[in-house]
Amino acid sequence: MERAEALEIVKKQLTKPRYEHTVRVMETALQLADYYEVNKEKTELAAIFHDYAKYRDKEEMQKWIIKEKLPHDLLEYHPELWHGPVGSILVKHEVGINDEEVLSAIRWHTTGRRNMSLLDRIIYIADYIEPGRAFPGVDEVRKMVYEDLNNACWMAAKNTIEFLIGRNQSVYPDTFHLYNEKFIGRSLNGE
Amino acid sequence: MERAEALEIVKKQLTKPRYEHTVRVMETALQLADYYEVNKEKTELAAIFHDYAKYRDKEEMQKWIIKEKLPHDLLEYHPELWHGPVGSILVKHEVGINDEEVLSAIRWHTTGRRNMSLLDRIIYIADYIEPGRAFPGVDEVRKMVYEDLNNACWMAAKNTIEFLIGRNQSVYPDTFHLYNEKFIGRSLNGE
Repeated sequence: MERAEALEIVKKQLTKPRYEHTVRVMETALQLADYYEVNKEKTELAAIFHDYAKYRDKEEMQKWIIKEKLPHDLLEYHPELWHGPVGSILVKHEVGINDEEVLSAIRWHTTGRRNMSLLDRIIYIADYIEPGRAFPGVDEVRKMVYEDLNNACWMAAKNTIEFLIGRNQSVYPDTFHLYNEKFIGRSLNGE
Repeated sequence: MERAEALEIVKKQLTKPRYEHTVRVMETALQLADYYEVNKEKTELAAIFHDYAKYRDKEEMQKWIIKEKLPHDLLEYHPELWHGPVGSILVKHEVGINDEEVLSAIRWHTTGRRNMSLLDRIIYIADYIEPGRAFPGVDEVRKMVYEDLNNACWMAAKNTIEFLIGRNQSVYPDTFHLYNEKFIGRSLNGE
């Protein structure tokens, strides 16, 4: 799919600031894909569609989580976490994207998880560091991203957990697993 | 088992400061058992033996974790976390304690977990708040413990996670699950 066509499709799903964020994520992700020699077409597609489901109704997302047998515990956590997993389902059904690597990167872009692929990591971290972001600690992550991508993802997970715990909010287990991955290692079989 | 006999047994396993800590945990736990109407004998036994395995060799503990099929991921985390689960095995084998409620409280006293029993919680929090402890935030937990025991355990888990993450250390998943329990609720079937 051509970039212009993809952007046209996603533009209709998003607010203007969210669309502009999406374009910045795409640009950031493509720089990383170039540096880490990851497929540019897949990176572009995953970045453009990563927030596709961002503004869907909570009720609609709930239905997809149940219908598609996404992890049931998602329903116990903040609905803000649903648009990644549900987005990976919707871009398949509504846009016709079937590439599992692209769908995986869309799925995990908010929570992260242990054992992410290179493309998963690029989308996760591009979403975190794109130039519009001003999280505390984001500049340190921006410096780390070309030095050690895994460590940059760990720093983002750490910052996210500290932010949420500091506000007495729940933390989705996969984000904890991404944090712990640095200490206990990535498994060889991918799980 | 009489208190004096139990203390005699555990004294031989511990350093002097650790034995004195154990006596303070026992006193704190018995006050809580009185307040929350939990069996005093079980509370006393669990408190006295909670650190029974504290000074065992790492290699010995590793063997027990494998032999008794304790969760294998323990081996990926800090050995400091092993003495609870291994202690619950050793007091059964070496001391002849078979009460599952007592063994459970010994097992979970360091990491905590989701869905702890009342006795589990009393030992977990007594270990955290006994008068010798000076963690940041411990006084707030001491105040909470007679008001809302579940919330006191949550505060202890939160403090522990913040402490560990602030030092860039791994956090055992059950501690995260205890933290999240407040938000997603305790399940009815105990798991």
